[in-house]
Amino acid sequence: MRETIVEVAQRLIMQQGVRATTMDQIAEYLGISKKTLYEYFPSKDALIEASADFFLNHLEQKLNEIRQTHSENALLPMIATANYVYSLLTSLNPVLYTELRRVIPHARARILPRIQAIVQKQLSLSVEKAVQEKLFRSDLPMDILPSWMSFVIVQVVLNPALAQEVKKSVAEIYAETILLLLYSFTTEEGRALLEKYKSQIRQAYVR
Amino acid sequence: MRETIVEVAQRLIMQQGVRATTMDQIAEYLGISKKTLYEYFPSKDALIEASADFFLNHLEQKLNEIRQTHSENALLPMIATANYVYSLLTSLNPVLYTELRRVIPHARARILPRIQAIVQKQLSLSVEKAVQEKLFRSDLPMDILPSWMSFVIVQVVLNPALAQEVKKSVAEIYAETILLLLYSFTTEEGRALLEKYKSQIRQAYVR
Repeated sequence: MRETIVEVAQRLIMQQGVRATTMDQIAEYLGISKKTLYEYFPSKDALIEASADFFLNHLEQKLNEIRQTHSENALLPMIATANYVYSLLTSLNPVLYTELRRVIPHARARILPRIQAIVQKQLSLSVEKAVQEKLFRSDLPMDILPSWMSFVIVQVVLNPALAQEVKKSVAEIYAETILLLLYSFTTEEGRALLEKYKSQIRQAYVR
Repeated sequence: MRETIVEVAQRLIMQQGVRATTMDQIAEYLGISKKTLYEYFPSKDALIEASADFFLNHLEQKLNEIRQTHSENALLPMIATANYVYSLLTSLNPVLYTELRRVIPHARARILPRIQAIVQKQLSLSVEKAVQEKLFRSDLPMDILPSWMSFVIVQVVLNPALAQEVKKSVAEIYAETILLLLYSFTTEEGRALLEKYKSQIRQAYVR
């Protein structure tokens, strides 16, 4: 039951945002009493935290799967990851990006660092292989790059102020950011492969 | 007199940070009474704002000069700008990056947007020329790039949390960021020129 509650809460939050999702609504959706719901989660905050953990665990698992599935070369799993994250970001209610910074400050202190950790780990795992395959430059500043990129994702891409300023969705900014960085990381050989994949990937990536 | 006060205040703030710089010290430095100082600036906050404006006006003027001086090709003024800003960042007391976000919130609301505006303007002015000269890719996402880059500078490069995490100076992170982005923007031809300039520029840029 606990897991079902978290799954439903997570889906409602993704669709509506945190503020619009109420404990009443979650109980009604599950056909349980509010009393039962509160037996599992003593507060809405506790349920939000559990939902965020659920979401991020699932994301991390997915990214690991993607990395292991696409093993032909080191660039392909990055393209596949970008596609997956792009579609995920598209499915989120945009109000969440604002809520992540404002409405739920203590959740923010858990969620943003967790996202940063995921970005760093995924990048560290894939860059080395891409350098070995000569698809990425060997002179990349690896001492700062994983942290740097995690800051770019959290402070720039997921920043609703930028999306508002350029009148684009967070998903579009994400896609453009990944492309900009892949163009930076790749060698001449890597760029040729990138150009090839670009035509296979979703419209948003193709300029 | 007003300008001399601002100049001295700006220099002391750059060396010591905002908090460590007192009105007493500024008055003493100028050999004037505190009463006289307060006739020009009713509060330390007012003097800080004037100093920030002075600093940013000077910076903007310098960047315009640099862009006009180096006209051989479109990449050179960017390298020269990066060198200038790098040396400027090196000369600042690192406490300022933290103070910019915490100690002086109302100054922050003026200074950070102003820095963003300067980055955006400089980038817009130089990228078009670089694209014409085929040194930059013609498929750069110009609808988001100037804003995107201004967010990267303010939210990532000038973010003391990143500098702390990677144990590097803000100036070093700036230099690496500019290099990463120039590698992304350049065409094959532009990259060849970039590699050539890299060896001429300061140690921090050379890996």
